Amino acid sequence: MTHEVDDDGATPPRRGGYRKGAERRAQILDEMIRMVAAQGVDASSLRSVADALGITHAALRHYFPSRDELLLAVYREHEVREQDAPDRMRSAIGDMRESASRNREVPGLVQLYTTLAADAVQEGHPATRDFMRERFSRLRADLAELIAADQAAGRIRADLDPVDLASLGIAASDGLQVQWLLDPDAVDGERVLRLLESIIPAADD
Amino acid sequence: MTHEVDDDGATPPRRGGYRKGAERRAQILDEMIRMVAAQGVDASSLRSVADALGITHAALRHYFPSRDELLLAVYREHEVREQDAPDRMRSAIGDMRESASRNREVPGLVQLYTTLAADAVQEGHPATRDFMRERFSRLRADLAELIAADQAAGRIRADLDPVDLASLGIAASDGLQVQWLLDPDAVDGERVLRLLESIIPAADD
Repeated sequence: MTHEVDDDGATPPRRGGYRKGAERRAQILDEMIRMVAAQGVDASSLRSVADALGITHAALRHYFPSRDELLLAVYREHEVREQDAPDRMRSAIGDMRESASRNREVPGLVQLYTTLAADAVQEGHPATRDFMRERFSRLRADLAELIAADQAAGRIRADLDPVDLASLGIAASDGLQVQWLLDPDAVDGERVLRLLESIIPAADD
Repeated sequence: MTHEVDDDGATPPRRGGYRKGAERRAQILDEMIRMVAAQGVDASSLRSVADALGITHAALRHYFPSRDELLLAVYREHEVREQDAPDRMRSAIGDMRESASRNREVPGLVQLYTTLAADAVQEGHPATRDFMRERFSRLRADLAELIAADQAAGRIRADLDPVDLASLGIAASDGLQVQWLLDPDAVDGERVLRLLESIIPAADD
């Protein structure tokens, strides 16, 4: 068994194979993000992905044993890249607005997110469920912290529950992406999120 | 070919068969709403539904040729029953709050809705896409009308765009259902929709 075969096979990579395996994994994710952005998530059955990447189905399954794991990895990688985007997390709702605006450019990733959300609330996708549950929990906590800081500074009225307000902002952003994707001429998600921002009362309102 | 076989076969029902066909169709939808409410949408492959109903796969396909058509019909039937629920459409956001509260009792229908939304934004589900697109369009128009009436009465500030505010309310309600389904202890969708209601400024604010 050569090193090549070992890297692409079902057994764990041997000494020296780790870096190579990590590189191959990163290449697959790179290509997948491009594919999902261009063609949407329906193009992402394991077999068609393997075909598009010019690797065997077995090689792909070595890195991503199931479609759920592949879709999750693609979304996680997208999130990591998002984290590195400029101006991240400077203001609460404003941040989601920027993120929504970047997502507009890659409808495929909005489709992927909607698929993960739908899978997460069904039976039979435990990894997706855990991922989405933790994602929402973390997002609510992060956003609630920014909101609490805005409340301390008098920019948001102090009696509003920061976690509830965070849930509201995240829900609005998620729901608007679906409406926008179905009817881009009728719904401008960024404008509606600006509307939400504008009606959150300041301390002296 | 007997009348029975004709009703359950792939050919159109003969004279006298129409009422019978409509009754059988209604029975299937009745049973499906119960199944989806109890077990979620994953239990709804055409074959498992046929098994559960004690009819043949061919008989089920006579009424619902594809899984998409079956899921759409179940959701439409659910919507029709919702329309008959008391206190429908008395106030804008309040109405969505009541609807969300009724949906809490049937997580399977929230799962079904999330599945339809995810299918609608993918390629390959044109009927679902059309249905959801029209559903959002109608909901936005209905809600915007209520909001405009509230604005005329001074209950909502007149400079807010009624359609954008409608998009916001629908998006918040949809997004909150997903967060609630994944983490019912952390997210109270009704309370968060009340929060949204409370921050929409009145004319004299």
